Amino acid sequence: MKIKDKKAEDIRIAYVGGGSRGWGRGLMSDLALAEDLSGTVYLYDIDAETAKQNEIIGNNIEEAGGRWNYKAVDSLKEAMIGADFVVISILPGTFDEMESDVHVPEKYGIYQAVGDTTGPGGIVRALRTLPMFEEIALAIKEFCPDAWVINYTNPMSLCTGLLYQIFPEIKAFGCCHEVFSTQKLLVSALKEFEGVEDAKREDIKINVVGINHFTWLTKAQYQNIDLFPVYKKFVEKYKDTGFCRDEKENNLNVFFKTMQKVKFDLFQRYGWIAAAGDRHLAEFCPGDWYLESPQRVEEMLFALTPVSWRRGRLSELLEETDKLISGEEKFKVKPTGEDSVKQIRALIGLEDACTNVNLPNIGQIPNLPLGAVVETNAQFTANSVTPVMAGNVPENILPLIGHVCAEQEMVLTAVLERDVSKAFNAFASDPLVRLPLDKAKELFKEMLANTAEYLTMYNLDF
Amino acid sequence: MKIKDKKAEDIRIAYVGGGSRGWGRGLMSDLALAEDLSGTVYLYDIDAETAKQNEIIGNNIEEAGGRWNYKAVDSLKEAMIGADFVVISILPGTFDEMESDVHVPEKYGIYQAVGDTTGPGGIVRALRTLPMFEEIALAIKEFCPDAWVINYTNPMSLCTGLLYQIFPEIKAFGCCHEVFSTQKLLVSALKEFEGVEDAKREDIKINVVGINHFTWLTKAQYQNIDLFPVYKKFVEKYKDTGFCRDEKENNLNVFFKTMQKVKFDLFQRYGWIAAAGDRHLAEFCPGDWYLESPQRVEEMLFALTPVSWRRGRLSELLEETDKLISGEEKFKVKPTGEDSVKQIRALIGLEDACTNVNLPNIGQIPNLPLGAVVETNAQFTANSVTPVMAGNVPENILPLIGHVCAEQEMVLTAVLERDVSKAFNAFASDPLVRLPLDKAKELFKEMLANTAEYLTMYNLDF
Amino acid sequence: MKIKDKKAEDIRIAYVGGGSRGWGRGLMSDLALAEDLSGTVYLYDIDAETAKQNEIIGNNIEEAGGRWNYKAVDSLKEAMIGADFVVISILPGTFDEMESDVHVPEKYGIYQAVGDTTGPGGIVRALRTLPMFEEIALAIKEFCPDAWVINYTNPMSLCTGLLYQIFPEIKAFGCCHEVFSTQKLLVSALKEFEGVEDAKREDIKINVVGINHFTWLTKAQYQNIDLFPVYKKFVEKYKDTGFCRDEKENNLNVFFKTMQKVKFDLFQRYGWIAAAGDRHLAEFCPGDWYLESPQRVEEMLFALTPVSWRRGRLSELLEETDKLISGEEKFKVKPTGEDSVKQIRALIGLEDACTNVNLPNIGQIPNLPLGAVVETNAQFTANSVTPVMAGNVPENILPLIGHVCAEQEMVLTAVLERDVSKAFNAFASDPLVRLPLDKAKELFKEMLANTAEYLTMYNLDF
Amino acid sequence: MKIKDKKAEDIRIAYVGGGSRGWGRGLMSDLALAEDLSGTVYLYDIDAETAKQNEIIGNNIEEAGGRWNYKAVDSLKEAMIGADFVVISILPGTFDEMESDVHVPEKYGIYQAVGDTTGPGGIVRALRTLPMFEEIALAIKEFCPDAWVINYTNPMSLCTGLLYQIFPEIKAFGCCHEVFSTQKLLVSALKEFEGVEDAKREDIKINVVGINHFTWLTKAQYQNIDLFPVYKKFVEKYKDTGFCRDEKENNLNVFFKTMQKVKFDLFQRYGWIAAAGDRHLAEFCPGDWYLESPQRVEEMLFALTPVSWRRGRLSELLEETDKLISGEEKFKVKPTGEDSVKQIRALIGLEDACTNVNLPNIGQIPNLPLGAVVETNAQFTANSVTPVMAGNVPENILPLIGHVCAEQEMVLTAVLERDVSKAFNAFASDPLVRLPLDKAKELFKEMLANTAEYLTMYNLDF
Repeated sequence: MKIKDKKAEDIRIAYVGGGSRGWGRGLMSDLALAEDLSGTVYLYDIDAETAKQNEIIGNNIEEAGGRWNYKAVDSLKEAMIGADFVVISILPGTFDEMESDVHVPEKYGIYQAVGDTTGPGGIVRALRTLPMFEEIALAIKEFCPDAWVINYTNPMSLCTGLLYQIFPEIKAFGCCHEVFSTQKLLVSALKEFEGVEDAKREDIKINVVGINHFTWLTKAQYQNIDLFPVYKKFVEKYKDTGFCRDEKENNLNVFFKTMQKVKFDLFQRYGWIAAAGDRHLAEFCPGDWYLESPQRVEEMLFALTPVSWRRGRLSELLEETDKLISGEEKFKVKPTGEDSVKQIRALIGLEDACTNVNLPNIGQIPNLPLGAVVETNAQFTANSVTPVMAGNVPENILPLIGHVCAEQEMVLTAVLERDVSKAFNAFASDPLVRLPLDKAKELFKEMLANTAEYLTMYNLDF
Repeated sequence: MKIKDKKAEDIRIAYVGGGSRGWGRGLMSDLALAEDLSGTVYLYDIDAETAKQNEIIGNNIEEAGGRWNYKAVDSLKEAMIGADFVVISILPGTFDEMESDVHVPEKYGIYQAVGDTTGPGGIVRALRTLPMFEEIALAIKEFCPDAWVINYTNPMSLCTGLLYQIFPEIKAFGCCHEVFSTQKLLVSALKEFEGVEDAKREDIKINVVGINHFTWLTKAQYQNIDLFPVYKKFVEKYKDTGFCRDEKENNLNVFFKTMQKVKFDLFQRYGWIAAAGDRHLAEFCPGDWYLESPQRVEEMLFALTPVSWRRGRLSELLEETDKLISGEEKFKVKPTGEDSVKQIRALIGLEDACTNVNLPNIGQIPNLPLGAVVETNAQFTANSVTPVMAGNVPENILPLIGHVCAEQEMVLTAVLERDVSKAFNAFASDPLVRLPLDKAKELFKEMLANTAEYLTMYNLDF
Repeated sequence: MKIKDKKAEDIRIAYVGGGSRGWGRGLMSDLALAEDLSGTVYLYDIDAETAKQNEIIGNNIEEAGGRWNYKAVDSLKEAMIGADFVVISILPGTFDEMESDVHVPEKYGIYQAVGDTTGPGGIVRALRTLPMFEEIALAIKEFCPDAWVINYTNPMSLCTGLLYQIFPEIKAFGCCHEVFSTQKLLVSALKEFEGVEDAKREDIKINVVGINHFTWLTKAQYQNIDLFPVYKKFVEKYKDTGFCRDEKENNLNVFFKTMQKVKFDLFQRYGWIAAAGDRHLAEFCPGDWYLESPQRVEEMLFALTPVSWRRGRLSELLEETDKLISGEEKFKVKPTGEDSVKQIRALIGLEDACTNVNLPNIGQIPNLPLGAVVETNAQFTANSVTPVMAGNVPENILPLIGHVCAEQEMVLTAVLERDVSKAFNAFASDPLVRLPLDKAKELFKEMLANTAEYLTMYNLDF
Repeated sequence: MKIKDKKAEDIRIAYVGGGSRGWGRGLMSDLALAEDLSGTVYLYDIDAETAKQNEIIGNNIEEAGGRWNYKAVDSLKEAMIGADFVVISILPGTFDEMESDVHVPEKYGIYQAVGDTTGPGGIVRALRTLPMFEEIALAIKEFCPDAWVINYTNPMSLCTGLLYQIFPEIKAFGCCHEVFSTQKLLVSALKEFEGVEDAKREDIKINVVGINHFTWLTKAQYQNIDLFPVYKKFVEKYKDTGFCRDEKENNLNVFFKTMQKVKFDLFQRYGWIAAAGDRHLAEFCPGDWYLESPQRVEEMLFALTPVSWRRGRLSELLEETDKLISGEEKFKVKPTGEDSVKQIRALIGLEDACTNVNLPNIGQIPNLPLGAVVETNAQFTANSVTPVMAGNVPENILPLIGHVCAEQEMVLTAVLERDVSKAFNAFASDPLVRLPLDKAKELFKEMLANTAEYLTMYNLDF
């Protein structure tokens, strides 16, 4: 990398999961728009074909003005040697395993809205994803130990945590946009109750504490307006009907629908602003609260996302990809709203930034365990990401969040020691799993069997 | 107090709740047997009559050889001035309030085995008990700030914690015998699997961590025998049938029955030895596990203790009291197995002791919040109780125990700030309360109304 | 205060020590240059005349374009009611007391370069300054509890710490520019060894840990250049001759001279970059190192600042003031290089900032005591100052810094309990005071006697 | 090992440094007196001849009644296989190295009373001792990982700390009797001011905090008498003349003389009871306080112990050994007053004990770094040593003790990384070393050269 005149050239990015159609093409779009950055993105994917496709698509983006070069490679090594940045967005397993993660528990009365982060689905997904992250961490340690590593893969906290377990000196952090939606919700509240018309998401200054997908705001401020009383009025008004920030979005996909009622219920319970999508939030709470049954989900005006929908969506994406490659369609460059390029720019030393990310707890949340991967604001500057002192998790939500940390710690140990019985410890205590011990074991064993192809490193007979 | 020749004379004990028929008379018995101790016990009780009765009974104990003098007094002040020790065992409210605590939640599908420590019953009981403890703490501060204070009242952790909140320099601790039974269970296991015939409870060396009534052993050793593998075999053998340590006891009172199946299930879940009665343990776990329904309780071979039984038992006790006073019956002196007199002797400086007690966490359990009242071993010596470094709560049970700490902290805050809405925060999140927010509120309000006579210091309309 | 179109109007600033010729007029200058800010500065000073003078000077500044109004007032109350910000820069006592602080210890072989922060002078200065801060803190609590409070007064850490002791909810921080000079030194090194010509102070990204005037850098980065190896070469080259960043400045005032040799020696000892002026740094180290004798000071190429020089400087300032008021001279508006206006702008919500400030330790430096006022970077945004996780003080400098924290804690306790014997504890253990106990007491008593007029709240006869 | 009827048989003890004439023979004596213990002591020593001598002497002890068998062996392996306990008391190097440790610094005006724990002598001694402890720790890990390890070797904290660094699961603690003398001093004070005639050392109940040889009492109690006010009167009376607890002892050896004046001075400075010999205490304080010059030492009525005396003493011991072996003299069995046998008995499970030992800080002293080896009380019971919560080091002595921890941490790192430059960091900052950096380096290099034979694992050219 060379930096001069406030521009950085010859930046080298290794993209692991380089065939990614979502995060991958989003990054292409944002890089194309970053006029002060240029370089090469090395695309590595287990499914080599998809990386090759992205290479073609990336190199065809006119808006990038030739500043970015995309290159599909055949190994982590080729991607990583000399890398300044590593981006990871992989999908562990196929939709078959995801089908099991999400829907098998339904036979036991356990409903999951997403099933990729926590709960039965999240735990089993972690068991098959983390060993892949071990491999990635070792490659980083060997090939580009000084690179900055940006993770987008779920389960976010566990994937990021594992990188640090394997290579403690790694410079990695995890990114997620869930909090942004809550900032936008506050923009709506600000408009409705304070008449502020032109506030942008970034103008909503917040303090974030929690675990990825179960993040909370303990402060929210717009200029000299404290947003907590504003949000309180907002919740009062919409707590029964729910609030639709974007009708279009909800109509577009009923399986991602959210009317914020979970968020509002949590505010009424605790007085703090839960800051993730309702589908995620619900999964971290006792199963009786929001996910007791499909009826309860409907009552709370959110949705369970079926894997069948994801399968359908994939077909569309494949079709779209073909068109992009054939030239039948042109890749649409538009800002994703993600912070990655802003973060990259700051790490290079071009312009400081402050945003929320996932990092091991070194004390930024004093009442969560050290080492747990937590989500808080962090200061990004030249070659440095420093979490701010986010402060304690409020005492009334500490039990919920403390439970998540402990569960994740157990799963991490299970993976590192290749001992699924420790993962079962976590599984049997998960708030969504409200089963006697024998029933819980039965379910867990069935789910493991369904994903066994990806669990060859464990002894499943425990 | 005077000490000479290894004897302490003129010890002054203030007994708050001095009409106590259980703890009170137990202490009388133990004091009668302590040949190196003598002095006066000042009995204070809101129900003055009962204190008067205990005065008569106490002064009639021949075995005490005139060493102990009992004196009923009319005020905390009279009891406390000059006191070396204060003992507190009070019953807050009547069986009517207890009836509501324990049985009203059943209408909402919430079953409680005891209902005095945690869960809906424990929380409401705390709301009416803690203000009384404020008064007691203030009296201690004024009349005998240097006295050692021994609390037997439930909810143990909250009562003890409140004493420290009101008078931080207080020298108080809380005593409970639940752990002893688990030591005895280990004696049984030791006999069955190692052939050790003569081990006594005190020979089972343990490390205790947790919260009162939800205590756990992380070490258990007899001489050079590690008791964890022994207990593991024991659990394997008895996990389905349960184990009866004392047939007689179970037969005597079916409502206190326990066959240790909850304890065994918890060992299978976590690998650590839960060390309290099953009736208590069950109340700290998610309601779906052991208290989902009366059928589930029966399956797990323990019992729900109805308040009607307590009413019956009271009648018997009153009768017994009459006989003791009339002389028709003679007070039976026998060692209670409690550690109080051993503790008193150590605090005086006669002989060191090490036993488990409830004390504010000053770091003895590093991963629980500072200030939370925790149960661990402590070293008792002249004018000093020092907790040992019990170490971290094991990561897999931390969520359960962390939840208790947080709930108690919320209730404590609610009491100190006279704000029942904060207690409702705790109530709605309690693992036994698996209700939507509106239902939870309905139940809580009903329970408050039933105990309103004792809650005049709060605004119940929140 | 009103905010619209990225401008803030009607800002109200209370300036305590409003007659200040240094910090006070600096702020006037910076405010005059801030085109997006306007409002009123209320000047309060014990020496009312000086506040009046600053009122006149401030209102005459043409560059402010009428945006700022200055108003001398007669009480803290008048200054503070309605204040958005409070600025504190006071001088406790007169040059007579300072004379004693700095020069009396010389009779005992103790030399001080500044004598206002630590050492015998700093401790006695604290004893007379902190009671004034108690009064200020109480006024803030009463009249403007929501205002942001910016302190410039030394001893910085103690003054700031005391504000929090008296009014724990205060929103106060302390500002100091010492670190900036070290950033400039790194600009010099960067130029000399890397050929970078155009780096500015703000481009030097640093991590700051320590106590005010004894701050250290644990990271220093310019874009993709790690500045530690650069500084290492720099120190190698200049360790014997010293380095003069600004010939002019050193010539201007030989009593403030510094050639960085103390800084270089500390880098050789510890490998970390000490980031304050040599005159301050030397005072925190064992007296034998840099302040053993005037000869040693000369050898290390820095200077002891005599109070006589300050007296002379005052005459000049008074003269200058007369000219400003009479109009004979015009007030020169130029940026001071301080961060205060940047901080004010961020707190209003106009533009985020990240800079180093003094705040109570809530964990930003995990291995210093909680509550100690430490200096680290902090994120400034709308109505919020959040320290970043600066991380541990490196183990090899921890003893030096830990000593400072402990000494300050003792002095704070001495002031709060009005017990000078506790300040003597600190005094006798100060690294500059290398005296037997009786000699130390003799010196301390003499210094107290000299400043007795300002110590009437203590019993000096201990 | 077998345990029955409250007796333990076939205990196996590995004695590393088995030729020890001091600690070694003391243990023989105590074991001979322990009627409930029997077994074999395996004596290993680099100087095999001395182990052989102790074998003969040990097996000749009639009082042991044949219960103990002594056996000199040729390797750590032979000593350790099957060991229940390992005892370590070794002397690293010869008196030539010790001569350099203690007396070379005198050329630079640095005086040391002992020179084996801290200061220049302690640091260099650590550099040559700790690599031997690495070897021992690895042998324990391999041959007897479950054995309890008792260390007597100085520098105590560093040797014990290193064992844990190399083998974190080790069950090791360090023993030292320095605190006992202070308990005896309190017995004297108790007699003089309270007329208590029959108190024994063990009756003085204390709370110990600190680092070995720099331990402090924060509580001291005899029955119902608080010993702090008693000690205060005692210090008042004897602060100038000093106090001689045992005229005979002082006369016997003028080089070990102590009249407690350092202890008294420290009490006057800080209000806490320093609890080690004055010769040790002085070495942890700034060099100007008690060790500025031989005159100052004389004034404070303690003594510098010259190595020449130790050489003379060795000759006597060798002579005595010859007589013991030839039978000309009979080994005198008498209780040493050490706690080792009491500790062994407790670890076996025969009888609990509570005494002060050196253990890694797991939180027993919250304001010292985790992992630092600290000295506090600990509860000894079957297969378990658990430190009690000793509490914080008082704020006014924290700087002194914190400095020791940091210095030891640096030395430990230096040894583990084989990097003497890190030991020099510690050396140059030691409170006894009040030298400019170049002088400090000169001295350090000279001392290293003198002990080079034992430092072959380091690169001394730094």
